[in-house]
Amino acid sequence: MDDRIRAHAETLVGWSARVEDGDEVVMRVAEGAHDLAVAVAAALGERGATLVATYGSDEVSRAYLRAHDGDFGPADAERALYDRADVYLSLGGGRNTTATADVPGDTQSAYARAREEVREARLATDWVSTVHPTRSLAQAAGMSYEAYRDFVYDAVLRDWESLATEMGRLKDIFDDGRQVHLVAEGTDLTLSIAGRTAVNSAASVAYDSHNLPSGEVFTAPAGTEGEVTFDVPITVQGRRIRDAHLVFENGEVVEFAASEGEDALADLLDTDAGAKRLGELGVGMNRGITRPTDNVLFDEKMAGTVHLALGRAYDACLPDGETGTESAIHTDFITRMGEGSRLVVDGEVIQRDGVFRWEDGFEG
Amino acid sequence: MDDRIRAHAETLVGWSARVEDGDEVVMRVAEGAHDLAVAVAAALGERGATLVATYGSDEVSRAYLRAHDGDFGPADAERALYDRADVYLSLGGGRNTTATADVPGDTQSAYARAREEVREARLATDWVSTVHPTRSLAQAAGMSYEAYRDFVYDAVLRDWESLATEMGRLKDIFDDGRQVHLVAEGTDLTLSIAGRTAVNSAASVAYDSHNLPSGEVFTAPAGTEGEVTFDVPITVQGRRIRDAHLVFENGEVVEFAASEGEDALADLLDTDAGAKRLGELGVGMNRGITRPTDNVLFDEKMAGTVHLALGRAYDACLPDGETGTESAIHTDFITRMGEGSRLVVDGEVIQRDGVFRWEDGFEG
Repeated sequence: MDDRIRAHAETLVGWSARVEDGDEVVMRVAEGAHDLAVAVAAALGERGATLVATYGSDEVSRAYLRAHDGDFGPADAERALYDRADVYLSLGGGRNTTATADVPGDTQSAYARAREEVREARLATDWVSTVHPTRSLAQAAGMSYEAYRDFVYDAVLRDWESLATEMGRLKDIFDDGRQVHLVAEGTDLTLSIAGRTAVNSAASVAYDSHNLPSGEVFTAPAGTEGEVTFDVPITVQGRRIRDAHLVFENGEVVEFAASEGEDALADLLDTDAGAKRLGELGVGMNRGITRPTDNVLFDEKMAGTVHLALGRAYDACLPDGETGTESAIHTDFITRMGEGSRLVVDGEVIQRDGVFRWEDGFEG
Repeated sequence: MDDRIRAHAETLVGWSARVEDGDEVVMRVAEGAHDLAVAVAAALGERGATLVATYGSDEVSRAYLRAHDGDFGPADAERALYDRADVYLSLGGGRNTTATADVPGDTQSAYARAREEVREARLATDWVSTVHPTRSLAQAAGMSYEAYRDFVYDAVLRDWESLATEMGRLKDIFDDGRQVHLVAEGTDLTLSIAGRTAVNSAASVAYDSHNLPSGEVFTAPAGTEGEVTFDVPITVQGRRIRDAHLVFENGEVVEFAASEGEDALADLLDTDAGAKRLGELGVGMNRGITRPTDNVLFDEKMAGTVHLALGRAYDACLPDGETGTESAIHTDFITRMGEGSRLVVDGEVIQRDGVFRWEDGFEG
């Protein structure tokens, strides 16, 4: 076994999920994640945790959903499992990212609705999602299998303790700040963050962070004004969007354009009232992620990028009793903070040319 | 997909488990059983059942058990899952029948003890075990993969309704009978079955039968007298036993021999007091099973064979309040009913030369 698989499992179980003796753990194993599952099982055994492995097969789901008439009953047995579980570990990594492409959308929605309580019970555990690198994910990233494995382990096997400390600096700045000013090519945007709380997303339940890898600091902005251009392409429900350009007035999108997928962008903005407003301002700080791979969970964490999400805000960022943007969507758009860029909080330059003020090479 | 996989799934879900709309089903998927799992998922979806798939990986179990210190806590989450489940379907078919060979025996026993309540909750459902043919099982059977697949589907895809009717005849004879007399090469044995109830094991929960394939009628004998020779080899905890020969007096083994594995046979008989007595008399009636494959679940169902188990009797065969043989073991030994053999109940020949009296070619 590649030593990195063992290290991945140890990071997941130790740093991310903080599994302890006696914890009851449900581990979801995707079709291609067997090797990681074996390593995680060993890490759980060492800690004296209890293990139930579930089979997260897209092909099994597809067969089930296509055969079903869409009138789904409650899933009490599965809910009972998660109600009793302390930890849920999702090991992604399938064999075909489009395995469920021919399941009708309304069947998928009906299934998701019927399983809302299962989902809630799962989210009430100390849950962490990660992915095992598979050939299918390499293909989606446009990479060789070997290069993709290196990419994933570079992203996952960080010194998380030290990254959490560094990200803590930015969280403190955001927590104390009132206004963010973003400047980059095609971007000149101001956002209010007064009274909002940033999340130091350090890939651990101890930081309210549930993805491995993670590596971002995010908060919930308001009153956005100006324009922004997103030069990292994204895929939304199978449709590619490139070079999205948005103009905000009073917190709302008033103009939009894209060099590819402008229709998809229009549909997205049209979802509901909240879809035209921002729910998240995030700053990627994972230096192990050095290129986009058409997978937002990695792309948005890329060091030297900023992302803004249209739609729903995270409760954790909002003061008690205050509601942020509400929407059925939360879609992240990413822009590179390259040469000539600035991230400014209350007039102070925090990052210039993609370099933070506490890093070597920062030119204030 | 091989049409036989679909037919297997349909037989499992329809005939064996009798799954209905709204049933909550837990499906255990062994490492090599993916294709059958996809077909079963479709059959469950069609019936409007709820599905949770678990991953029954021997390699995951091995890693977990070897890393664990052996002090296992209760598995409440998993138990809660089975407490709520209506049906449990175990899809066997691994990639290595000896995958857990290097897990210490005391760890395995401690794990089994800690999970006793999980096991009970699972057995309280309408559970059915089956196997998907894999290369590993073909190898264990000494067969090519292609030939083994044919073998498994011949055994599984029977006209179960009609076999259940035929087996019902033998059940009636056993239920009404007082004494069985078995005669074959090296075998001349009498067993009392008075007051005992036979099970028509027709591979369906509707018949209290939980294996697919099945195809046997069995009951609990007493007061065995005489000698018996088992010419189908068996493997007990990794040790081969050939041509076991047992002599019974007053229901108990008083002499034994074997052409191979006599030590293993001696150890077995030495387990406890019940290990020297019979717990089961079974008659194989599945004509799809035409050769032994060193897998007792198939071998004991082979048409033209009789099997006797040393050890524990099934409660279902005993009158209320009566206890049959009690033992930690239940080990089936199989003998072919070939030329010159007779199965006689209360003086009436039921089977001669391996042919039942209701079959063509029977010579009473």
